[in-house]
Amino acid sequence: MNKPKHHIFVCTSTRTGSQPKGLCHGKSSVEILASFLEEIEDQGLSGEIFISNTGCLGLCEHGPVVIIYPDNVWYGGVTPDDVEEIMEEHILGGNVVERLLLK
Amino acid sequence: MNKPKHHIFVCTSTRTGSQPKGLCHGKSSVEILASFLEEIEDQGLSGEIFISNTGCLGLCEHGPVVIIYPDNVWYGGVTPDDVEEIMEEHILGGNVVERLLLK
Repeated sequence: MNKPKHHIFVCTSTRTGSQPKGLCHGKSSVEILASFLEEIEDQGLSGEIFISNTGCLGLCEHGPVVIIYPDNVWYGGVTPDDVEEIMEEHILGGNVVERLLLK
Repeated sequence: MNKPKHHIFVCTSTRTGSQPKGLCHGKSSVEILASFLEEIEDQGLSGEIFISNTGCLGLCEHGPVVIIYPDNVWYGGVTPDDVEEIMEEHILGGNVVERLLLK
């Protein structure tokens, strides 16, 4: 198989019950996932940039969380508006988007 | 935040409709996930070895699929009985389990 150059993981966790820390799914994570998918397809990168949704990453208060491997870069508080910047700067440009890094 | 030394992803995809290629969820993937979690907790590795479930990875005919990042190692046809070997050999020993590699 061809391994990805970058594999983007977006937490789209949904849980039931009271959620004091919020939920990625309730914070536009599905929209973020769709936006990444659109960018990847539009730029013909489907063969080298993979994207997957994940279950809860345990960082709910910092969600939506986006991880990029094998880079091991973790972004928090991502919004759909940030997707283009992550694609341009990180995926295509090779530069981490500092302002979105999880501390 | 502390980044993981290894992040194990297990596809636990569930879909509806006819599934000619099978589904990771229908092939013990939840049992695999639980088994990794137990090994990680038993060995006190929760702080450095993370584990997440993912949605469909598009490799259904090779499922259940387990990916280990940042190593970028992809295993296919994994069974619950393989979990101990992956933990001992790969996670703790640093050696890829060749027989389970996705070709």
